[in-house]
Amino acid sequence: MRFSEEGSVGIVTTQYFTFAHPPNEMPLDSGEKLGPITLAYETYGELNEARDNAILACHALSGDAHAAGISADPSGISAADIGFGAEGKGKVDRSRIGWWDNMIGPGKAFDTNRYFVVCSNIIGGCRGSTGPSSINPATGRPYGLSFPVVTVADMVRAQKHLVDYLGIRRLLCVAGGSLGGMQALQWTVSYPDMVRSCIPIATTARLSAQGIAFDEVGRQAIMADQNWHGGDYYGKNTPLPGLGVARMLAHITYLSDESMRQKFGRRLRNREKYGYDFSIDFEVESYLRHQGDSFIRRFDANSYLYITKAIDYFDLTNGDGFLSKAFRNVKARFLVISFSSDWLYPSYQSKEIVKALKANGIDVSYCEIPSSYGHDAFLLEEEAQTHLIRGFLAYTAAGKDL
Amino acid sequence: MRFSEEGSVGIVTTQYFTFAHPPNEMPLDSGEKLGPITLAYETYGELNEARDNAILACHALSGDAHAAGISADPSGISAADIGFGAEGKGKVDRSRIGWWDNMIGPGKAFDTNRYFVVCSNIIGGCRGSTGPSSINPATGRPYGLSFPVVTVADMVRAQKHLVDYLGIRRLLCVAGGSLGGMQALQWTVSYPDMVRSCIPIATTARLSAQGIAFDEVGRQAIMADQNWHGGDYYGKNTPLPGLGVARMLAHITYLSDESMRQKFGRRLRNREKYGYDFSIDFEVESYLRHQGDSFIRRFDANSYLYITKAIDYFDLTNGDGFLSKAFRNVKARFLVISFSSDWLYPSYQSKEIVKALKANGIDVSYCEIPSSYGHDAFLLEEEAQTHLIRGFLAYTAAGKDL
Repeated sequence: MRFSEEGSVGIVTTQYFTFAHPPNEMPLDSGEKLGPITLAYETYGELNEARDNAILACHALSGDAHAAGISADPSGISAADIGFGAEGKGKVDRSRIGWWDNMIGPGKAFDTNRYFVVCSNIIGGCRGSTGPSSINPATGRPYGLSFPVVTVADMVRAQKHLVDYLGIRRLLCVAGGSLGGMQALQWTVSYPDMVRSCIPIATTARLSAQGIAFDEVGRQAIMADQNWHGGDYYGKNTPLPGLGVARMLAHITYLSDESMRQKFGRRLRNREKYGYDFSIDFEVESYLRHQGDSFIRRFDANSYLYITKAIDYFDLTNGDGFLSKAFRNVKARFLVISFSSDWLYPSYQSKEIVKALKANGIDVSYCEIPSSYGHDAFLLEEEAQTHLIRGFLAYTAAGKDL
Repeated sequence: MRFSEEGSVGIVTTQYFTFAHPPNEMPLDSGEKLGPITLAYETYGELNEARDNAILACHALSGDAHAAGISADPSGISAADIGFGAEGKGKVDRSRIGWWDNMIGPGKAFDTNRYFVVCSNIIGGCRGSTGPSSINPATGRPYGLSFPVVTVADMVRAQKHLVDYLGIRRLLCVAGGSLGGMQALQWTVSYPDMVRSCIPIATTARLSAQGIAFDEVGRQAIMADQNWHGGDYYGKNTPLPGLGVARMLAHITYLSDESMRQKFGRRLRNREKYGYDFSIDFEVESYLRHQGDSFIRRFDANSYLYITKAIDYFDLTNGDGFLSKAFRNVKARFLVISFSSDWLYPSYQSKEIVKALKANGIDVSYCEIPSSYGHDAFLLEEEAQTHLIRGFLAYTAAGKDL
């Protein structure tokens, strides 16, 4: 996990693509429209002449367009905020290293010597793409809760405009973990002719009741914050404590009982015995508070509401429960990856995807990687994922067009 | 689970016992002192002449002294707030039925025709026993955060005064689930000569890092509430939203992925399609909000802080990691019960207890009950627990003094 110049895509600059879908707005699943839309994105590697080596990497809830290399923008997203693995990444300012830097770069799983990798911030987000903190052109003020609720399919719909703009007719692969995996799955369903392969990692075809429950508590923590003011807090006191609580909670679900025991156990923080007060006693408390504190410096509370709602709404079966029907027009081949200790998106949910794909005669490989890291493993289990993904991409790239 | 007159201990009245430990205060693990102390308690059945048929039932985080029967006090704790099982309890006002009514009564697991069952509200609580919402006699105002941090051992120390007061020299059994199980374990260690048997259910000898983490997020939700005011909110606006968030979060950990899927799945609440806003979409959201709403009507936010802290501090090994040493003076026999889907206090934690007891040559039976109810199973799995507990108690009662 140590950061090194070798294997790095180097310093990268986030770019911005604004499109005005005719007549200036993009239709959404809700029936509302949104536009013009700006997408923040980055690219790594070179698009070849045949334009058939493009891979779209999709980010998770708290990610952004800065997937690899060192951000030219010093306020770039912090890989250090994501899981344990960012520790000891060497002397580079860790907050400027991309969230999937260990997977994207020369010689890495997504080998930028061979492939052209694109990553864009989702709509609804707060890292350069249009979201609730963006200025509503109709009012000249931030959208706040007047921003329409968007779905994963809407996020993908916006990404398609970017892919078109980049001159990519078909993607070699769409890949991502967690919410990124949902987007990857959605791509194969929404635009079957544009996707040759898909790598959904640590994800699900429909969020579980438990997942909805955790998201709802996070939202309630934000909306219970007296500074939230119905989402109209821009330029005023912001609901940072509520957002911090939401993040702390979510972070527990990204780890595992085992990894927390190994990493923290019951070790005390800077003390020999209990403090008998409500300051920090345990290492795990200190770690969680740090996670909350660093997150609220870079994330918008309303975006947290919108993105978790999109995750809750994600259900490829559209409520009818038959996943195999959802995949009936899919043309991509698949590599499905899950992790043994991921209890937020347990392996049985990946197996449901595999089963439904197979029912449609789709070429699918599946691997449950043994790991104690929990859900965060998709950011940390570099070696096992690299082995699988490298081979799968080479196989896909060499294959005839499907 | 249906409530019926048959098997009920009938209408019960909570009693109050106030003691002034010489010189008027009880020493605490923290080094501080507390007193005078009032304990709210209830009893069911009759203490026999030999005074050897007494069972102490210990309650969990949100429980209270009202363990069985119908409370004479219409504001009695709501069994309806505890898990799924309270549904369909018949026509009796569910909020007045004791939290372990399905286990305590004539012919039930803790058979009040044979045994004298005692249950008292823990210190630090808010249901009649001395806690942060009680009046501090030194100031004439509620303690708030000037209430000393108490431990599970302190809770048990106070209970011992009650047991002495009731004229019970030795308890036939101490039993409880979750925090109640911690108290039961602590009794066997603190007062080995006073406990003939112990039934720790769905509990642990030391809280895990993950458990501490969940408790800490709950506390942060309360302390982030602008109405919390450093715990000094009595008679003013109270931190109800923060407490509600803490309760919603905790409630998820009491259920299981499987039980939530079976109970709620992705079913929508009172609508045919998504609302595309932040009102309630899913049944599981409605259920959680109800859990939060009903909890804040009956529970004090500061008590939530104190009790979770006591749970976090609970570690029978006192930090040295050797559980077998902790049990070396224990004289009780044990029935240890865990539930297959309990991920808050997983079975491996009960097995650690069993192993450490066996290392001391202690008579111990262990059963992992198959259940999809998660941690809440100790309140719901009536039949399997009854079968085990009835036999264990009869065996203990018939046995010679250890």
